[in-house]
Amino acid sequence: MSSNPQPGRRPLVYETPLAIRAWSRAFRCGQKTLALVPTMGALHAGHRALFQAARQAADAVVASIFVNPSQFGPGEDLSSYPRTLDADLAACAEEGVDAVFAPTGLAVYAADHSTWVCEDALASGLEGAIRPGHFQGVLTVVLKLFNTVEPDVALFGQKDIQQALLIRRMARDLLLPVDIHVAPTVRETDGLALSSRNRYLSVEHRRQAPALWKALSACRELLESGERNMKRVEAAGMEILDSVPGLKVDYLQVVDMETLEEPRNMGRPLVVAGAVRLGTTRLIDNIVCPPGALAGSSSGVNAS
Amino acid sequence: MSSNPQPGRRPLVYETPLAIRAWSRAFRCGQKTLALVPTMGALHAGHRALFQAARQAADAVVASIFVNPSQFGPGEDLSSYPRTLDADLAACAEEGVDAVFAPTGLAVYAADHSTWVCEDALASGLEGAIRPGHFQGVLTVVLKLFNTVEPDVALFGQKDIQQALLIRRMARDLLLPVDIHVAPTVRETDGLALSSRNRYLSVEHRRQAPALWKALSACRELLESGERNMKRVEAAGMEILDSVPGLKVDYLQVVDMETLEEPRNMGRPLVVAGAVRLGTTRLIDNIVCPPGALAGSSSGVNAS
Repeated sequence: MSSNPQPGRRPLVYETPLAIRAWSRAFRCGQKTLALVPTMGALHAGHRALFQAARQAADAVVASIFVNPSQFGPGEDLSSYPRTLDADLAACAEEGVDAVFAPTGLAVYAADHSTWVCEDALASGLEGAIRPGHFQGVLTVVLKLFNTVEPDVALFGQKDIQQALLIRRMARDLLLPVDIHVAPTVRETDGLALSSRNRYLSVEHRRQAPALWKALSACRELLESGERNMKRVEAAGMEILDSVPGLKVDYLQVVDMETLEEPRNMGRPLVVAGAVRLGTTRLIDNIVCPPGALAGSSSGVNAS
Repeated sequence: MSSNPQPGRRPLVYETPLAIRAWSRAFRCGQKTLALVPTMGALHAGHRALFQAARQAADAVVASIFVNPSQFGPGEDLSSYPRTLDADLAACAEEGVDAVFAPTGLAVYAADHSTWVCEDALASGLEGAIRPGHFQGVLTVVLKLFNTVEPDVALFGQKDIQQALLIRRMARDLLLPVDIHVAPTVRETDGLALSSRNRYLSVEHRRQAPALWKALSACRELLESGERNMKRVEAAGMEILDSVPGLKVDYLQVVDMETLEEPRNMGRPLVVAGAVRLGTTRLIDNIVCPPGALAGSSSGVNAS
């Protein structure tokens, strides 16, 4: 149901919730479908793959560009997070994105903002344990974006798998009329997952960074060979990470894809998820076993 | 912009989110507006006044009837809460309600539901202090109803003023495309605010119940006469409540209408709010000074 992309045409840019919603409603009342790709800008080939998948999923594509303050912790990189709006709009134009929602902070958070989306099962482990409050910020801003753009489908990258699964849970629990698609991680040729934060890496750290992917791949290999002792699987990955001088491991864990907890039922899909730090840069990545499991499961409550 | 009500015609009844949303979208894409009146059933004249106000506010009226388990605390009256669906549907028909959304519990809460709306400013005092978790349950179910029915406007009664102000705050903070209207409390001739819980009252307690309204009225009189010492205002109300044998006071408080905290800026609208218990029945009520302040303030972010 993809329409004609017009690569190179500059997308419509909206700055207020009222304006983008009016456009969205007019578009959809013509029975067309809308896909949203929420981003924090600093767009790379991973985002471009999301735009392309979005075009396959709906008649028009909206990108949002907003560095969401509430998902950064006190010591994190909010102020230094890369902001490259002109290049981002050019990338959107090249990918045939139809409209961009690029709001100011105050249009999204009133000075006395006090309402949050909290999730108390999937959000507690992995990234949630290391970054308290992070997912509350993510879910809240994504819900605001959904309420504003009113998409039929929204796309997220597998690299942030816990985020993607949490947003699916939110869509289901809050009866949101939005399907959540998760697109495969795009990687450099040496396996490093693309991330806006990769540009922070020094030459030496960039050279070391693919160790995370290597460790995850080693874990998957063990799982695929039939190993069911998760401690042994994790130890094989840790051995690879520990061999990299200066690399610090936040976690490397095998979890049940549905609960994000320690696997109890061996028949269910698994996620091997890891987070490491190289200098001041934090990298995350994951692998799903079996590989197709993530695309298969669905989403919110959509009439379409 | 009211359409022709057809009193006596039985409303369409929908049980699943998908069904009511499909009806709502088809209706609204014809450029018509929808009003939602969320209820827990056990409809009385206060709900009927909301249906009538809803008809003035939009082209069609949807009532939801759902006794929301998550807003009841462990020791509260969930299991005994009155359930009168047949009479409720008859009342909806008489008031010309166009569609009723009466879902089952499982359509609203999956067994592993884990996503909540939390508010950390307006929800902490008054009812929130006495009923921990209550407003988290209220906000979560109201958001689900909004996502399902997709109304342009939703109506709530002033009797539950903290709830109404919290829903307005949620609508603003989450950029919901819904205007929140608050309709005046409907009272018995002796001043008692209508409530589904009034039917629990014994004859003796029913006779004593108007004391709450009398106490609030005495507070308002003092405020209108220029008294600015809130302790003195509250004491005047407490004197009336304390004179009722067996009546227990949860709170009687004067608060700033915008923050629901102790008034600091004397130029702003005030709420006198009270909660009392007579036997096992809990009654709440409030008065706003000046009386028009509540209707004046607005709501979410609506394109209309």
